[in-house]
Amino acid sequence: MSAARVDGRKADQLRPVTLTRKWSIHPEGSVLVEFGQTKVLCTASVTEGVPRWLRGSGKGWVTAEYAMLPRATNTRGDRESVKGKVGGRTQEISRLIGRALRAVVDTKALGENTIVVDCDVLQADGGTRTAAITGAYVALQDAVTWMRDKKLIKASKEPLTGSVSAVSVGIIDGVPMLDLCYEEDVRAETDMNVVCTADGKFVEIQGTAEGAPFDRAELDALLDLATGGCKDLASHQVKALLS
Amino acid sequence: MSAARVDGRKADQLRPVTLTRKWSIHPEGSVLVEFGQTKVLCTASVTEGVPRWLRGSGKGWVTAEYAMLPRATNTRGDRESVKGKVGGRTQEISRLIGRALRAVVDTKALGENTIVVDCDVLQADGGTRTAAITGAYVALQDAVTWMRDKKLIKASKEPLTGSVSAVSVGIIDGVPMLDLCYEEDVRAETDMNVVCTADGKFVEIQGTAEGAPFDRAELDALLDLATGGCKDLASHQVKALLS
Amino acid sequence: MSAARVDGRKADQLRPVTLTRKWSIHPEGSVLVEFGQTKVLCTASVTEGVPRWLRGSGKGWVTAEYAMLPRATNTRGDRESVKGKVGGRTQEISRLIGRALRAVVDTKALGENTIVVDCDVLQADGGTRTAAITGAYVALQDAVTWMRDKKLIKASKEPLTGSVSAVSVGIIDGVPMLDLCYEEDVRAETDMNVVCTADGKFVEIQGTAEGAPFDRAELDALLDLATGGCKDLASHQVKALLS
Amino acid sequence: MSAARVDGRKADQLRPVTLTRKWSIHPEGSVLVEFGQTKVLCTASVTEGVPRWLRGSGKGWVTAEYAMLPRATNTRGDRESVKGKVGGRTQEISRLIGRALRAVVDTKALGENTIVVDCDVLQADGGTRTAAITGAYVALQDAVTWMRDKKLIKASKEPLTGSVSAVSVGIIDGVPMLDLCYEEDVRAETDMNVVCTADGKFVEIQGTAEGAPFDRAELDALLDLATGGCKDLASHQVKALLS
Amino acid sequence: MSAARVDGRKADQLRPVTLTRKWSIHPEGSVLVEFGQTKVLCTASVTEGVPRWLRGSGKGWVTAEYAMLPRATNTRGDRESVKGKVGGRTQEISRLIGRALRAVVDTKALGENTIVVDCDVLQADGGTRTAAITGAYVALQDAVTWMRDKKLIKASKEPLTGSVSAVSVGIIDGVPMLDLCYEEDVRAETDMNVVCTADGKFVEIQGTAEGAPFDRAELDALLDLATGGCKDLASHQVKALLS
Amino acid sequence: MSAARVDGRKADQLRPVTLTRKWSIHPEGSVLVEFGQTKVLCTASVTEGVPRWLRGSGKGWVTAEYAMLPRATNTRGDRESVKGKVGGRTQEISRLIGRALRAVVDTKALGENTIVVDCDVLQADGGTRTAAITGAYVALQDAVTWMRDKKLIKASKEPLTGSVSAVSVGIIDGVPMLDLCYEEDVRAETDMNVVCTADGKFVEIQGTAEGAPFDRAELDALLDLATGGCKDLASHQVKALLS
Repeated sequence: MSAARVDGRKADQLRPVTLTRKWSIHPEGSVLVEFGQTKVLCTASVTEGVPRWLRGSGKGWVTAEYAMLPRATNTRGDRESVKGKVGGRTQEISRLIGRALRAVVDTKALGENTIVVDCDVLQADGGTRTAAITGAYVALQDAVTWMRDKKLIKASKEPLTGSVSAVSVGIIDGVPMLDLCYEEDVRAETDMNVVCTADGKFVEIQGTAEGAPFDRAELDALLDLATGGCKDLASHQVKALLS
Repeated sequence: MSAARVDGRKADQLRPVTLTRKWSIHPEGSVLVEFGQTKVLCTASVTEGVPRWLRGSGKGWVTAEYAMLPRATNTRGDRESVKGKVGGRTQEISRLIGRALRAVVDTKALGENTIVVDCDVLQADGGTRTAAITGAYVALQDAVTWMRDKKLIKASKEPLTGSVSAVSVGIIDGVPMLDLCYEEDVRAETDMNVVCTADGKFVEIQGTAEGAPFDRAELDALLDLATGGCKDLASHQVKALLS
Repeated sequence: MSAARVDGRKADQLRPVTLTRKWSIHPEGSVLVEFGQTKVLCTASVTEGVPRWLRGSGKGWVTAEYAMLPRATNTRGDRESVKGKVGGRTQEISRLIGRALRAVVDTKALGENTIVVDCDVLQADGGTRTAAITGAYVALQDAVTWMRDKKLIKASKEPLTGSVSAVSVGIIDGVPMLDLCYEEDVRAETDMNVVCTADGKFVEIQGTAEGAPFDRAELDALLDLATGGCKDLASHQVKALLS
Repeated sequence: MSAARVDGRKADQLRPVTLTRKWSIHPEGSVLVEFGQTKVLCTASVTEGVPRWLRGSGKGWVTAEYAMLPRATNTRGDRESVKGKVGGRTQEISRLIGRALRAVVDTKALGENTIVVDCDVLQADGGTRTAAITGAYVALQDAVTWMRDKKLIKASKEPLTGSVSAVSVGIIDGVPMLDLCYEEDVRAETDMNVVCTADGKFVEIQGTAEGAPFDRAELDALLDLATGGCKDLASHQVKALLS
Repeated sequence: MSAARVDGRKADQLRPVTLTRKWSIHPEGSVLVEFGQTKVLCTASVTEGVPRWLRGSGKGWVTAEYAMLPRATNTRGDRESVKGKVGGRTQEISRLIGRALRAVVDTKALGENTIVVDCDVLQADGGTRTAAITGAYVALQDAVTWMRDKKLIKASKEPLTGSVSAVSVGIIDGVPMLDLCYEEDVRAETDMNVVCTADGKFVEIQGTAEGAPFDRAELDALLDLATGGCKDLASHQVKALLS
Repeated sequence: MSAARVDGRKADQLRPVTLTRKWSIHPEGSVLVEFGQTKVLCTASVTEGVPRWLRGSGKGWVTAEYAMLPRATNTRGDRESVKGKVGGRTQEISRLIGRALRAVVDTKALGENTIVVDCDVLQADGGTRTAAITGAYVALQDAVTWMRDKKLIKASKEPLTGSVSAVSVGIIDGVPMLDLCYEEDVRAETDMNVVCTADGKFVEIQGTAEGAPFDRAELDALLDLATGGCKDLASHQVKALLS
């Protein structure tokens, strides 16, 4: 496990992580999350009321939308608004972030309120969906605090049952590595995104063999790396929320 | 692991599997796959030429499209053609099937030809995406044989480097179970789809905690069930292709 | 009238007709209709309530949607969901099927309930719209029976005032012929679709000169063939519903 | 056949017909056609070249698009551009007009040129599609003359093999009537649109039972009325083209 | 200021203006406005009720939609309905017309009613948006009169607080000119559209340097021309409304 | 002209302006522009080649796209990608920015290359379009410099013929004011956006009476303010480009 990484990191090392809260003035929660050169603006917007299918249920709703600025990447991508439809990759990631957040939300405690978390990638260098989940949780926490201040949530209720973070892992030249940057990501034979709670349990695992199929031993090594990485990210989240 | 299942199966038992080849007269490959009450029509369509970004590369292309008839399910769903857009779930599954098939395709050996595999769910009872992948591989194999007969593939080339099948696993009332039907699927705390090659390696793993997050021991039990299930499915595929 | 047909039929002979009821487990009515190699799955879905413009009128609504699987035909067609819009031909046929069914529906007797009949072409070999109408009527009848069992329709009411079936006719090399298969259809100078009630009256006539315009004598010959064909189809419908 | 009509016409009488050529300055052919209060602007636009599927065939192409201004009718209809899609009725009529015109076009004689005939309903009072076909033929004729002047068509070639016109017929209170205005149209039990060539042959017949199904005798009466009406319209067309 | 214009007009002279009221039978107000060869049909449609965001406010709403027939121009343009979206230019002009009309509307006096003014360009020769505004005001006035007759507006209320008209101005070969026709418009270095009230105040100014930027003196000259032109147009409007 | 402004500025004073170049790592030019709390990320993307209608002309192309993040404003707006179409306001502003930039571009000197400038509003507090134009010019300048370094532009050519900046002005409680923030913007009776070159000439003027129409004297006062503001902005641009 001593392969040189493009940026000199160790195989089990995260890129520098920053979580800047209150980056924007308007949203109830807003966090600029950076995993190395990857920058994602996560904003949490609170509205009273819920989608039709939940009305009268006493339950709230949390959902997420992911998108990239057209020149967040090395080559400019056409805007999905101009193309007139949201692409498959965008929808997949939006759904993933939403599921990850809902895994730690007690919708009953939220009351009939909706929180939409927008994750807009301002600059991409691999791991945008995992950075988005990690930042979105912090923005969500801030939005919940705001709701509590506004008495939208009863004092006795706690809508967040835990925390979530996410990280990518992959196998490059046979070596399992944590938190791939773009250059590593395109070279990876296997690519996996793992979402964990702070206590090290799994919320979501998505692993894909980009090249040769992978065996159980490789899978185990990747899961070990990922749970370690998520543990570190959970510390970053705690530190940011306490600051 | 002795929980009674709704249809009396054992926890590690597949539903009855049938793979009916040549179900349709027009496609180069066509298979009606049934996992219990789930029925998916998989058709493989061959066209000469490749999408623009592969022209001149000497490589072929394999892609997939998944869809459901409006009344394949218990409640009628609006047609995506009428809504004017393909939903997120549909796109996700189409992409998954395409990746799964490409994991066993040598696009160089395919030459500049395209195979589109359409997986249309005629009747749904859980596991439509895993049935689709399992049937799609057989349709793909038939299409490749057709191409060989038509001399679209050189005799010395073998475009398929292995076989793939897929199965769902989940945890219900704390018990890991194989190949969930719809009634089980909605009750599962954790839901995982696993795509394997015939030699038991992983092509794709997608696991989601629907309720409480799952731990490593649960994950391991699910992976054991899934690899066993895929091994059985690989036998079904071989038997169908030899018949 | 002795021209040899591609499949050896006589000019006034239908292809083999089968109407398989209860083909699917979920819909209130479901029929797989086959006119030779043409296979259409017709499912009737019942929902309580009606579209906005009928609310409070005491009247029900029956409508239809027609579609083709992408590889139902000899060459794969792009999905309308992927293209983002329903094509003109598809809309035309959906509207035709809906009108044909409503011609034998007493919406007042139906009460404020809606029946959507989906006609999905699984395999096409000419006459898909006429097969669809013929099968759709049987599925509709089964759905009405289901509603009666569920007490959604009052015992004293009869929402179906008759039966409808449809058949294509055309002139090939100057000879009028009944129930064209695809190979005949593309060669026809004139192509007509006729929808009749069981007592031989016309619900809809759509005739088009594909080549030279046709005269009154030719039209009369085509109408004779069509009414004869619909009479045969009405017998098939009765037999299927009694089985 | 002596029923009083809302405007005092006889059952077999057309409304006043006017065909105003050169209504617009830009198009190669432009005709404002009026059937009573129904006003349709028909413009024929010539472009060199043909759609992709005809390139190199030596054949030309004629197509049509029909639309209504939002307030052409008694109640304002939403614009299809704003709704983002062309409705089924609009597509059906556009396709009908295109087929009607192509029935009298020798595409080989046209050379690789395209004529698009736009039929925009400025004011509607029933029979907009039949007025459109009748006017479109005249605009098409003017466009062909323009092409001949510009040497886009060889002197020895005649792209138009005949003329077409169209009229609606219907049964109201049991009486077959010609050229229905809107008030009659909504009351009609049976409604039929007939497209004929100048020599009285049929190009298209579309008849629908709006109320009770119709029998062969009623159909015959309607066809008689329609062929008479189209004969009159053909005279109007000749007169307009000679003026 | 003596440059010869293509049609012999003086620099500060409008093209012939006609405002034909009651051009259509269905709308509550309908005006065919002509600025030389430019012809726009403006229809005002009244409906009771207002958009959701105004319900209960006691205020009415006036909005406008602008569009061009496909062959209103020298070259045929694709229909926006067929393209599936409204273009930027169309939206811009629709919004402009709506703002111009609302500038003279007292929505409180209108009550909770909506007037949609459709401006459809039948023939274009420059200045379509300014002709549209000028005609739309007259159609709006007629619709308001209709509402008053129908008692939809209280006798004591006056929903129109003034009149608006609009004209284009531009600099061609250094000379400021009024009311550009198409041929002048494409040659203009600077192009400006000005909307004024009858008392010579500005409602909207939109000026664009097509070639070199323009200075304050040029701007002043253009504004002088425009206010003069709008004064003339206001007289045409008064005359039309009194006729 | 001594009215107190919400942030204590003088009537003719800009908000604090910052232009941060190289804000992103990927684009050829990237500038974060801030007008007070308004923050717009402007990125310029260079691609070789031009749109179809310019191929072979030897000319380049510069265009712009404007958009807002969903929570850039006080209330979350739905994404245009999700709505499936670009709104009228967005299109209008995109077109305005494009025209403003092209006013100082010599497309011949650019050669057959395209520059797309994306202006994404990260945070909105009034004046987003004017900030966007001001920042876009600087990003464009950086992209041109990059092209020169890459030899995409010949040494002897200068594609930029000047600089542009833009500012809003408005009348609030009768007082003309420069560079309105959101709170002022909603209260303004008249709202105008002015685009100027560095030498004080006009590229675009868009003025709208939101309340009462404005007279010539008010217009003159607004134009004076705007030209002064643009002069200041031009200095900021020069300073940023020299830093």
